[in-house]
Amino acid sequence: MDSQRFQKQIEFMMEIDKLKQIFRQSLLTDGSRHENSAEHCWHLAVMTMFLYEYSQEKEIDCFHVVKMLLIHDLVEIDAGDTYCYDKTETKDQAEKEKKAADRIFNLLPEDQAKEFRTLWDEFEARISLASRFAHALDRFQPLLHNYQTQGRMWQVNGVKSSQVKARMEPIKDGAPRLWRFALDLIDDAVRKKMLDR
Amino acid sequence: MDSQRFQKQIEFMMEIDKLKQIFRQSLLTDGSRHENSAEHCWHLAVMTMFLYEYSQEKEIDCFHVVKMLLIHDLVEIDAGDTYCYDKTETKDQAEKEKKAADRIFNLLPEDQAKEFRTLWDEFEARISLASRFAHALDRFQPLLHNYQTQGRMWQVNGVKSSQVKARMEPIKDGAPRLWRFALDLIDDAVRKKMLDR
Repeated sequence: MDSQRFQKQIEFMMEIDKLKQIFRQSLLTDGSRHENSAEHCWHLAVMTMFLYEYSQEKEIDCFHVVKMLLIHDLVEIDAGDTYCYDKTETKDQAEKEKKAADRIFNLLPEDQAKEFRTLWDEFEARISLASRFAHALDRFQPLLHNYQTQGRMWQVNGVKSSQVKARMEPIKDGAPRLWRFALDLIDDAVRKKMLDR
Repeated sequence: MDSQRFQKQIEFMMEIDKLKQIFRQSLLTDGSRHENSAEHCWHLAVMTMFLYEYSQEKEIDCFHVVKMLLIHDLVEIDAGDTYCYDKTETKDQAEKEKKAADRIFNLLPEDQAKEFRTLWDEFEARISLASRFAHALDRFQPLLHNYQTQGRMWQVNGVKSSQVKARMEPIKDGAPRLWRFALDLIDDAVRKKMLDR
């Protein structure tokens, strides 16, 4: 056993525990508290296991999507979570996240650091069908959480339905068969006064 | 799109959110709060991605292990988390968990319910090398969390080192190259008075 290699793996294992302390804008479906990014990633990974049939890919590499989703938020350990409707905060977020990726993934042994970074770069680039499906799920889940919690966080943040629709576009792109459902949900939220027109 | 099938998938997706409210005995590594089962499963899934080289299997199906670990605690939504050193509580736990599996996995469409149940049964049976590696990680992670938090939960529950060693046996079985490290950590915890002999 290569003890230096193992030590790096243990260090990374302890470091990523911090993702459990990064809280997102979304609430749990019972509205009791905000969701953290680690449990959010878990939710998306399990969703992939039973929703991959809605991907655009004919022969989807399900594990590839799961791996991307499991690690896509790790950069938030340094860069924090940015609320998607806050334009001032998102400006230099990309730079902060790149720096975070440089530090965090490099805690791993070199071959694994490279593998994780490549996955994260693919997710961020949003070009491959796999990464576009991953993004679709990453948008789809908070949409359902917002709907389940009667749009509380939409109201708190004064978000309008046009903004939500624009934000949800990756669903149309990455999981087009979920798009109609997403649009209907948004329209229903407006009808039920959870969300401003 | 089969709307009945999709409706079941969405129902399952909302149901599993409840795992984020099931709290374990283990603390986060900074000791600030107890860990919940959803974020615990996320941690184990990511660990599989960089620790699979310590499995007994020569050609490990990494995704198979990840899938087992992502869903292995879902039964706790109904059955709760049982503290591993509490013998009175573990008595009828198996029966409660089986009932929970019957209800929860069957929210999914039939083919997927069967797939998830098969994964869970394999994990529980602990016969396949993949499931034994999954169990090894499931024991290894809280060991490190307990060590990182100076054994606070060991002390709170009056646990002794012999009990911890017995509890960690699945590591020897499923990831034998991690066993020496685990034993050294336990001995070091005794030396540092985090854990009673």
